[in-house]
Amino acid sequence: MTRGGGGLVTALRDLVRHAPNASWICAATTEPERVLAAAGRPVPAVIGTDAQCDLHLVAVDAAAHHDFYAVIANPLLWFVQHMLWDLATAPNITARELAAWRDGYVRVNEEFAHRLVEVGRASEPGTVVMVHDYHFYLVPALARAAGLDRFLHFFVHIPWPHPDALRVLPLEMRHAIVRGLLGADLVAFHTGRYARNFMLTCQDLLGLEIDESRNTVRYDGRDVAVRFYPISVDPESLRELAATPETEQHERALAATRREMMILRVDRTDPAKNILRGFLAFDRLLELHPELASRVTFLALLQPSRQDVPEYAEYRAAIEKIVDEVNARHGTPDWQPIDLRVEENLARAVAAYRDFDVLVVNGVADGMNLVAKEALVVNQRDGVLALSECTGAHEELGAVALTLAPFDIEQQANALWEALTMPAAERALRHAAALEIVETNNTAKWLTHQLADIRSLRPA
Amino acid sequence: MTRGGGGLVTALRDLVRHAPNASWICAATTEPERVLAAAGRPVPAVIGTDAQCDLHLVAVDAAAHHDFYAVIANPLLWFVQHMLWDLATAPNITARELAAWRDGYVRVNEEFAHRLVEVGRASEPGTVVMVHDYHFYLVPALARAAGLDRFLHFFVHIPWPHPDALRVLPLEMRHAIVRGLLGADLVAFHTGRYARNFMLTCQDLLGLEIDESRNTVRYDGRDVAVRFYPISVDPESLRELAATPETEQHERALAATRREMMILRVDRTDPAKNILRGFLAFDRLLELHPELASRVTFLALLQPSRQDVPEYAEYRAAIEKIVDEVNARHGTPDWQPIDLRVEENLARAVAAYRDFDVLVVNGVADGMNLVAKEALVVNQRDGVLALSECTGAHEELGAVALTLAPFDIEQQANALWEALTMPAAERALRHAAALEIVETNNTAKWLTHQLADIRSLRPA
Repeated sequence: MTRGGGGLVTALRDLVRHAPNASWICAATTEPERVLAAAGRPVPAVIGTDAQCDLHLVAVDAAAHHDFYAVIANPLLWFVQHMLWDLATAPNITARELAAWRDGYVRVNEEFAHRLVEVGRASEPGTVVMVHDYHFYLVPALARAAGLDRFLHFFVHIPWPHPDALRVLPLEMRHAIVRGLLGADLVAFHTGRYARNFMLTCQDLLGLEIDESRNTVRYDGRDVAVRFYPISVDPESLRELAATPETEQHERALAATRREMMILRVDRTDPAKNILRGFLAFDRLLELHPELASRVTFLALLQPSRQDVPEYAEYRAAIEKIVDEVNARHGTPDWQPIDLRVEENLARAVAAYRDFDVLVVNGVADGMNLVAKEALVVNQRDGVLALSECTGAHEELGAVALTLAPFDIEQQANALWEALTMPAAERALRHAAALEIVETNNTAKWLTHQLADIRSLRPA
Repeated sequence: MTRGGGGLVTALRDLVRHAPNASWICAATTEPERVLAAAGRPVPAVIGTDAQCDLHLVAVDAAAHHDFYAVIANPLLWFVQHMLWDLATAPNITARELAAWRDGYVRVNEEFAHRLVEVGRASEPGTVVMVHDYHFYLVPALARAAGLDRFLHFFVHIPWPHPDALRVLPLEMRHAIVRGLLGADLVAFHTGRYARNFMLTCQDLLGLEIDESRNTVRYDGRDVAVRFYPISVDPESLRELAATPETEQHERALAATRREMMILRVDRTDPAKNILRGFLAFDRLLELHPELASRVTFLALLQPSRQDVPEYAEYRAAIEKIVDEVNARHGTPDWQPIDLRVEENLARAVAAYRDFDVLVVNGVADGMNLVAKEALVVNQRDGVLALSECTGAHEELGAVALTLAPFDIEQQANALWEALTMPAAERALRHAAALEIVETNNTAKWLTHQLADIRSLRPA
């Protein structure tokens, strides 16, 4: 049971399900895909079980793809947009990064734009072109410059920071990125804060005129619309996932070993997820409340992430070190306070979603965080969501979750205590309210709102 | 020859010179000062040679002062406002920092506010109260709450970052800081960017109503004015300093050893100053242009700073390491490319100001940077200013300086080359234009504009 790409793929599958005659352009990453790509013809494909589309595979030169992906997109753009650089010492933009931009990021964007224009030109008039995420910032402007006459929609799935954060990028890169996006007719984000930061970026870094009442940026004689649509989950398919024999088997295993209370986190081992401070807060909780000894377990299900990027490998090592320290400090022969599993195991994650008492989502920056939404949908114990104010999800769920200040260990320890000792009636109320929000703001609504805006923005 | 506090003290001296019957409230930091403080009476004092005022010394408990200064103001607030934290791992706000806030920062601010209210009540009606810098954010609100009925002016001398940067601080701290400042009638910054960021902070973090056309924040039934006044230097006293025998002696010594070209930097050893990347850019310059060998020296005059803060001690060690590496890589038996002096020596700095060909100011964040202005005033060689876009000074001088992108080593190397090879006529034009800006926007103008705004904002 695996699911590449997490929540985004689920959302795109739903999108394709709603779009007859959809074409999907993506990179060929395996050898058979490269063979298909070389043939130059689209391949009929099914996403999930029922979403049909034509797949257009783009074969990218391996060296160019490495520079595009492992030098520019991750970590440079990811770190800039999540504000993760230790700016006194990193990044150093050198000739290496400039070459990776030119020969990697720009080149791959050109190849995708080229294919997009081919496919787009063959499409029916009125077809909507959607480009997703920070790997393809240059595609809208390139496609427009090539004369593609279709509605261009771009969705940024990671945070858009304040303008000054973009100054970490060389002038050439930051201008190309913003101008690339402004090639679109509609630029979409997950939250109002990101959308506003993008408008301020256009104003501060490029001197463009913005209209804060209409949420548009004036560029090149056009008004580019800037909007936000919080991405969500599909409750029905999550419940199906939670009812599979594999999930149930993991749930029985968890039930057999669980203590009275279970704190859970499910994350990639990414510095943005703030895993270290989560464990430090738990450490402090056990220090403040020794009566919790042997009664609570912090289950951390972490998927290894980008281990070819040195910062990620170091971060994973730091996680393992801190877990050893906390377990040594508070553990007993038959109780390990933190149960760390570094693995890809969706079934175990969904089983844990069902049974947590407190879910910790304490990221220092997180475009949305779909774990929070997924876990709420299937949880069976009126579990409490402890949610960082620096996640996109906090715009929707902040009022019913316990808010975490991600840099404040003491505040997080106190919030964990509040969550663990919350009266059952309050847990039930908060959980029901959170569930209502997620059920209402589901993936279908995410899509419907975008399509409605596209209809109203598109010339008649 | 020493000058405590650098440019700020110069500006305040000029302020006191223009203000008859001025009272200055400051901390007692030496034993004799503590004795005077205990007597509870003001002491007549002269700042510089001719600025007279009454000095009110506040004796602060040593432990409280340590927490106030070495835990909260530096490094926590300094790092937050200069965006220097490696956010994946630092800072960790723990019980220690929360106690230092309460028992240090809050307590010291209360003591200063208490004294300010005493002195302010005894002052003539119409007296203006000015509070300076990030150590005293809480003072305006405390003084107002205590009923002090005088015009309250606050000047922030360091960058004010975008709202999200403030989220590193616990909710209690960030709210207290913003509300503390909003106790003033006028909150002043060095640049329009900082002033705007402050207004956005009021709006985003506290939900306050702002008026971007009038530059006011609505708070507690009042309109708080938000303005910017770029601080400057006093050209006349700098020229006096440059003409002293001590400076001339250093100038002769520099002339005897200098190569054809001299690149200069003068900074505290502060991570915000971006000293490492400056040397990396010079390293790259020598690699790209081996014809510069033996013809250019990078003179770095660095004043040791805050060596009790671990981040500063580490940064200084990293500086020394990189200098050794660059000198080993490019140096010859009779030529060391980088001449590093870690010392307090104002006379040598002023001598070097006179003789540089290129001044490097490449900070990642810098409230103003007065070195750029000081050095321009006394330079005798039509020296070129290479100035980071992330300094406050860039708002005034960006059009006539060569702009540096502080994270981009390659761009800085190329800018250094452009500066070193700039035709004499262009150097002269740029230098004259820069000098004109500094001469016009001098300390007197900085003061006059503030006093004019205070007159127009004060009720008749």
